[in-house]
Amino acid sequence: MVRLEKDLLGEREVPATVYYGIHTMRALENFPLTEYKVSPVLIKAIALIKKTAAEVNFELGYLTKEKGQAIAQAADEILNGQWQDQFVVDALQGGAGTSTNMNVNEVLANRAIELLGGQKGNYSLVHPLNDVNMHQSTNDVYPTALRIAAIWLLKPLSEGCAALQEALQAKEAAFAGVIKVGRTEMQDAVPIMLGQEFSAYAGAIARDRWRLHKVEERLRQAALGGTAIGTGINANKKYIFMVNDRVRQYAGIGLARAENMIDVIQNADVFVEVSGLLKALAVNLGKISHDLRLLSSGPRAGLRELRLPERQAGSSIMPGKVNPIIPEAVNQTAFHIMASDMAITMAAQSGQLELNAFMPLIAHHLLGSLKILTNAVHILDEFCVQGLTADEEHCRNLLENSQVSVTALVPHIGYDLASKVARRASEENITIRAAALALAVLPAEKLDAILDPRAMTRPGIAGTPK
Amino acid sequence: MVRLEKDLLGEREVPATVYYGIHTMRALENFPLTEYKVSPVLIKAIALIKKTAAEVNFELGYLTKEKGQAIAQAADEILNGQWQDQFVVDALQGGAGTSTNMNVNEVLANRAIELLGGQKGNYSLVHPLNDVNMHQSTNDVYPTALRIAAIWLLKPLSEGCAALQEALQAKEAAFAGVIKVGRTEMQDAVPIMLGQEFSAYAGAIARDRWRLHKVEERLRQAALGGTAIGTGINANKKYIFMVNDRVRQYAGIGLARAENMIDVIQNADVFVEVSGLLKALAVNLGKISHDLRLLSSGPRAGLRELRLPERQAGSSIMPGKVNPIIPEAVNQTAFHIMASDMAITMAAQSGQLELNAFMPLIAHHLLGSLKILTNAVHILDEFCVQGLTADEEHCRNLLENSQVSVTALVPHIGYDLASKVARRASEENITIRAAALALAVLPAEKLDAILDPRAMTRPGIAGTPK
Amino acid sequence: MVRLEKDLLGEREVPATVYYGIHTMRALENFPLTEYKVSPVLIKAIALIKKTAAEVNFELGYLTKEKGQAIAQAADEILNGQWQDQFVVDALQGGAGTSTNMNVNEVLANRAIELLGGQKGNYSLVHPLNDVNMHQSTNDVYPTALRIAAIWLLKPLSEGCAALQEALQAKEAAFAGVIKVGRTEMQDAVPIMLGQEFSAYAGAIARDRWRLHKVEERLRQAALGGTAIGTGINANKKYIFMVNDRVRQYAGIGLARAENMIDVIQNADVFVEVSGLLKALAVNLGKISHDLRLLSSGPRAGLRELRLPERQAGSSIMPGKVNPIIPEAVNQTAFHIMASDMAITMAAQSGQLELNAFMPLIAHHLLGSLKILTNAVHILDEFCVQGLTADEEHCRNLLENSQVSVTALVPHIGYDLASKVARRASEENITIRAAALALAVLPAEKLDAILDPRAMTRPGIAGTPK
Amino acid sequence: MVRLEKDLLGEREVPATVYYGIHTMRALENFPLTEYKVSPVLIKAIALIKKTAAEVNFELGYLTKEKGQAIAQAADEILNGQWQDQFVVDALQGGAGTSTNMNVNEVLANRAIELLGGQKGNYSLVHPLNDVNMHQSTNDVYPTALRIAAIWLLKPLSEGCAALQEALQAKEAAFAGVIKVGRTEMQDAVPIMLGQEFSAYAGAIARDRWRLHKVEERLRQAALGGTAIGTGINANKKYIFMVNDRVRQYAGIGLARAENMIDVIQNADVFVEVSGLLKALAVNLGKISHDLRLLSSGPRAGLRELRLPERQAGSSIMPGKVNPIIPEAVNQTAFHIMASDMAITMAAQSGQLELNAFMPLIAHHLLGSLKILTNAVHILDEFCVQGLTADEEHCRNLLENSQVSVTALVPHIGYDLASKVARRASEENITIRAAALALAVLPAEKLDAILDPRAMTRPGIAGTPK
Repeated sequence: MVRLEKDLLGEREVPATVYYGIHTMRALENFPLTEYKVSPVLIKAIALIKKTAAEVNFELGYLTKEKGQAIAQAADEILNGQWQDQFVVDALQGGAGTSTNMNVNEVLANRAIELLGGQKGNYSLVHPLNDVNMHQSTNDVYPTALRIAAIWLLKPLSEGCAALQEALQAKEAAFAGVIKVGRTEMQDAVPIMLGQEFSAYAGAIARDRWRLHKVEERLRQAALGGTAIGTGINANKKYIFMVNDRVRQYAGIGLARAENMIDVIQNADVFVEVSGLLKALAVNLGKISHDLRLLSSGPRAGLRELRLPERQAGSSIMPGKVNPIIPEAVNQTAFHIMASDMAITMAAQSGQLELNAFMPLIAHHLLGSLKILTNAVHILDEFCVQGLTADEEHCRNLLENSQVSVTALVPHIGYDLASKVARRASEENITIRAAALALAVLPAEKLDAILDPRAMTRPGIAGTPK
Repeated sequence: MVRLEKDLLGEREVPATVYYGIHTMRALENFPLTEYKVSPVLIKAIALIKKTAAEVNFELGYLTKEKGQAIAQAADEILNGQWQDQFVVDALQGGAGTSTNMNVNEVLANRAIELLGGQKGNYSLVHPLNDVNMHQSTNDVYPTALRIAAIWLLKPLSEGCAALQEALQAKEAAFAGVIKVGRTEMQDAVPIMLGQEFSAYAGAIARDRWRLHKVEERLRQAALGGTAIGTGINANKKYIFMVNDRVRQYAGIGLARAENMIDVIQNADVFVEVSGLLKALAVNLGKISHDLRLLSSGPRAGLRELRLPERQAGSSIMPGKVNPIIPEAVNQTAFHIMASDMAITMAAQSGQLELNAFMPLIAHHLLGSLKILTNAVHILDEFCVQGLTADEEHCRNLLENSQVSVTALVPHIGYDLASKVARRASEENITIRAAALALAVLPAEKLDAILDPRAMTRPGIAGTPK
Repeated sequence: MVRLEKDLLGEREVPATVYYGIHTMRALENFPLTEYKVSPVLIKAIALIKKTAAEVNFELGYLTKEKGQAIAQAADEILNGQWQDQFVVDALQGGAGTSTNMNVNEVLANRAIELLGGQKGNYSLVHPLNDVNMHQSTNDVYPTALRIAAIWLLKPLSEGCAALQEALQAKEAAFAGVIKVGRTEMQDAVPIMLGQEFSAYAGAIARDRWRLHKVEERLRQAALGGTAIGTGINANKKYIFMVNDRVRQYAGIGLARAENMIDVIQNADVFVEVSGLLKALAVNLGKISHDLRLLSSGPRAGLRELRLPERQAGSSIMPGKVNPIIPEAVNQTAFHIMASDMAITMAAQSGQLELNAFMPLIAHHLLGSLKILTNAVHILDEFCVQGLTADEEHCRNLLENSQVSVTALVPHIGYDLASKVARRASEENITIRAAALALAVLPAEKLDAILDPRAMTRPGIAGTPK
Repeated sequence: MVRLEKDLLGEREVPATVYYGIHTMRALENFPLTEYKVSPVLIKAIALIKKTAAEVNFELGYLTKEKGQAIAQAADEILNGQWQDQFVVDALQGGAGTSTNMNVNEVLANRAIELLGGQKGNYSLVHPLNDVNMHQSTNDVYPTALRIAAIWLLKPLSEGCAALQEALQAKEAAFAGVIKVGRTEMQDAVPIMLGQEFSAYAGAIARDRWRLHKVEERLRQAALGGTAIGTGINANKKYIFMVNDRVRQYAGIGLARAENMIDVIQNADVFVEVSGLLKALAVNLGKISHDLRLLSSGPRAGLRELRLPERQAGSSIMPGKVNPIIPEAVNQTAFHIMASDMAITMAAQSGQLELNAFMPLIAHHLLGSLKILTNAVHILDEFCVQGLTADEEHCRNLLENSQVSVTALVPHIGYDLASKVARRASEENITIRAAALALAVLPAEKLDAILDPRAMTRPGIAGTPK
């Protein structure tokens, strides 16, 4: 069963059961590219704008109450998660998002028609463009919706980071007394507490939270009523004031009407900014994950200072092997987000004149990054960090077997003599204390006061008052 | 209804109806990251290897005929497209592909058990590791399967490029006589035929075809029998010879047993190489698409030398507007592929020691790029290039109105004097011929011989024998 | 003439005239990589830290007044631009910056020795490590110096952006009345003022200024006294308080002592953050530059709405050709900065445990980006934007010849009927007014009220009260 | 002392002593961007083309013998390394390379004038455009020169890779009998010989050599005579044949005249291809370097299987510390090259119509990558790989202390039972043999036959005939 619809290219059959129409059909055929769908969160943000516009247009007398209410109700259904299967256009689409906007317009129109007792396709009841899209253009709706969607997704990511930071801080406390070798450039350096290492991880994630918090502000520009190119053609001022105000209330986030809608519609730098900060988070997650894999290497022939929770058998051929799969997944996520940042950057800088035709790619990667990062933060927290345990004994053994305490001698005997002590200890495979005694650089008593590894994990010149 | 399965972490319920088992369940829980599934082509390549191994193991007496046949039949079903819904692990997974290998092992085992009349989960009939995975490791199976999958996907991409090249050459012929202004740095340069412009596009795509052809050779290394780290532990030599030979036959591509399996298992540079060449194709597609958008800009206030086929209404607010949506989609595809290349590169260079733990990310992006590029090439060919038409008259008008013929004067009057002619023509808004006459640089007859735009589109000094 | 110096690898000749010593010599031999030198600004920031440390160490009684003053004076000389030729280590160096720190230590020591009347190399007078580097490690000095250097370079960049924004706003004012065709997706859209286009450019740069302003805060963490890994080994608390306080005063920027020096020393995410924001600026500069090249395309066969100032002859073969070289250079700068962002990101995420060994690469690219962007902003402003002129007549002609006014009909006759008007106008090559009359969609009077292009550049439904 | 020169913008003073002229002066002022100079190798390649063109033009009667010889001699001087300081234009320049071409034209003209006894600036003797640039355009000269320069630089890189491969193979031989723990995903896997690990490194570099060898072929397209846009305007056919033939001879490389010069002049995909292969080399160098840092971690609290040659003191605060500075520098080089690949890609895909205006950025990054990689390969070879030694005893101890031999049990007792053995060994901290005996999985004799680590480093099922 089909129905006939018409556009500037002529007539076309549309399956009778679907809520989308001829514009969506065309796009479906034009973009058989990735099988990725448009983000449901973006669809919801667009639906929210459509609802708001319908209400305002009714209040201003442009739409009948009937039409306005039917559109708003249809939009509410989408916001409640219905009709997701009707949004069928490929995420990677030409046309600056027009096809996605058309898809929403058509689904809302046909659903509204149904609500009014009509047959799908009878656009004399509710028209996707004249009614649903009234006073709108893809070009003001789409970037505003993308901002709303991004802010919506920032919240769970931010909460996930808070939980991860908390888990890292719990380990900071738990491992506060676990002394071990600190390493720089993969070489034994000076003593550190395992807890101190986790304080650095927690510190990095705390910075990310701050960034996520601040960047939300940057996204709060609504350009509704800017219409085609930001000049506001076909949207009167009352509408512009009301629709932006109302969408702020409905979205539940601190949007503000953009001062210069021409700017907001054509420039995508703010998405590059957000993506750049997500990339900083990815960098931190990548660094932490790599460290966790290093510190848990072994179980016998590695550093084995940390034990990761066992999550699954690690090998189809090596029995008993357990791998650091969660950090590995997070490392890959980090690479993925960095790559997406590149895609966003290239798309953003390729905008031309009054519009950026590549917004769909930006939306796909930006909303994808927000979602995937949220998931990655979650598994790192719950499946890995929370279950970490330390091999305290091995940490201590490695430290005792090392010669890192030589650094504490420098303020007392100078760099060159201390180098000699280090060489002697290394060549003869003896402790720093023994080498220092052999070279008679300081009396034994003084050495004992200096060579206290725990003191070396705090500021101060060992063997003197702090 | 559930069944109980067991691994090194303990027991766990598995839905009774599913073909995958406990290892897959764990992975499903561990990696709730992207919602992207593992590429079906990769699953098929792994299934092909499993089938081959089962046959060889039966022939060598390691598996009973019954088991061997059941596994092979189950694998054939996957190769025929069945059971796709049983491959549920996230594309972005930790563990170097172990979870995907396990997933295939389990589905094959349970399906083979069924074929033998048993109940799913009764691994005494067919064991996912001891039987299906016999003489294998994820670490030899996965990179070999990725090579096979990539080669399989190269073929349609290559065919698509051939078709696109043909379409471009058809336009080269069709537009051979359409003379127009050539532009460098977006400024009027010297005359060119529109067909010549398409010859350059065709030339670029021809290079891409050659690259795709040559790179296939680079992927033809099978490392089956290398097992865990390429040393071949737990795989005897007969098996190694037979399994690689057989997989070559079955895959239908010129695979060869790798000389150094340790190398092939740990190094991912060949995927970087392939991705780098895909990126070169993306660059050409991006450049062509951008040119098509430039040349078709207008319809009134742009260059309007080309008309793109109309594919859909372009705007929800501007009636009658038709946008270059296909080139726009291809431009975005190009950015997407470039970003994926970055992801592949970062993952490849982060391998450590005997393995690259990030192969799943490499597989996701590499196979994704092959697929998406194939689709992009297809739509550019069919939905755009084939339907291009030229606005010959506008091309000619622009040329006549331009002053690009001045360059032809240089061999006759020198650069400096020709510059003066250009200035005069520009300032007085007259033709080059008129300006040359006004400055009396050459007799009118000579000028007429020189200032023939068609001659300027071929090698030679206009006004002299070629 | 040479002198002999010694380190843990043995003795080595050093040219008698140079101020650097054996550690620098080794590094010079070890890293013959790029011929790029370490940024002079970074050298100055390190020298500032050395001066500060010397003073504090004298005040705390660790250094004699003589030594302290000599080191401080030598550092002042570097700050005044002397001895630049003594900093010879390749920018791309292993060792986390140790070679650069050593280079500064040695130059300062030898210069201080000279100031004290000694011979270069006589480290009993002033020792590069025991004295100049006292209470310091590369690992606290280098990242702190990099922060200082970056903040120093942010200032001129920020000022450059302010000047560029001003120039763009001047053009916004100058072109406020120049009406033209607005374009979306390179297709004629609706009318816009050329001045409005410049308002969007100015708006983008204004955002960049805000970002540069805010990101400075993110860099204000001094980690002096953290020494080797941030635990503060070999630095007592008085020193830590005093040295960070003092360096803030001397640097003239709002530094603050880092709360968690372990974090600050090992994590490089803040540089990724800064680089990400520079990339957003690059995106805006790239977009603007591309637009300027588009709008000035021609002079005959292009859009030719804008005229760029002529800066040099454009072609060695085409006389009179002038190219948009400044925007082209800025576009390339944008690509360059984006690539540097990738280098910074990869280096930052590859840090391991207590240190990031790849800080020199980060420093090279970050300080380079700041410098190059400053220059690019400057030439775009002075050599291009300030001299832009509009071809008002051509703008108007293109607009009048276009059919973009059809959009204004939509609120009056609906999208579908307006599409028909657009088609008719296009097919018969007549004006929208004529087509509307031919289709009798509205009376002539009403049409005249609606089809006023200037009204279309402001919010409102043309033909109705705003 | 100055001389006056003139161009289309008017007159300008040029320092009397310099060989460049007004066009170079303008460019110098227009592009104060990076302080990076144009690659000397590119300058030489352009000079070679100029020499060739001068000779051919003389032979064809377009230039007097005097002029032709003077230009050729001046070009020879540049090829011999003279006049480098006269090439002053910034590497990052607008104008598609015109300024570099002009710079060479002017230096050659003025030097030729001098050789003919004239005064610099007296272009009536030799004219930079009419004579030196005769039958040429930047647009055919520059991309051809870039190809030549790239091929010239490929040779030393290729030789460097051969030397590195040899050094790795020498270590493969030297470490052939050093048995150790193999690691996958940073976890103990199965035994391997240290020599086998080096065979994998050597294998990767061998692939890179092959790539460098093959890619040279891709660069061998000379487009001389294509002039402004590849159509050959102002160059007659004899010239085209002769100049490309002759430049092949002089360059000493297998160039061929391009079939489609329009294509070769506008498309930069071949540089993306080359860069992509350099990136694959960078990936291999990065992976090897990272492994070397891992394997040499310690000296006490790390893996310490390898000892790197000591190249310099590693720390300004920690005496005796020696860091893996050479691999660290190579890792940074790898990041740098990957970033340059991104710059090249973005520039290449942004070409428009008949030309890519961003060739200078491509040239800067491509030639830079070739140079820097050559240096990086060299230091990795000479300063690191050649001096590597193994800590055989520690390798053996780690292996003996590990439980990796459990995998050899799988073919005999199955994966599940072997997992139990692994668990038991791990929990009770006993050997696999002891755990297997405790669980009575196999008789002691059989176990001894199976658990031979050396046998595990070769293909085969331990305890059975190979």
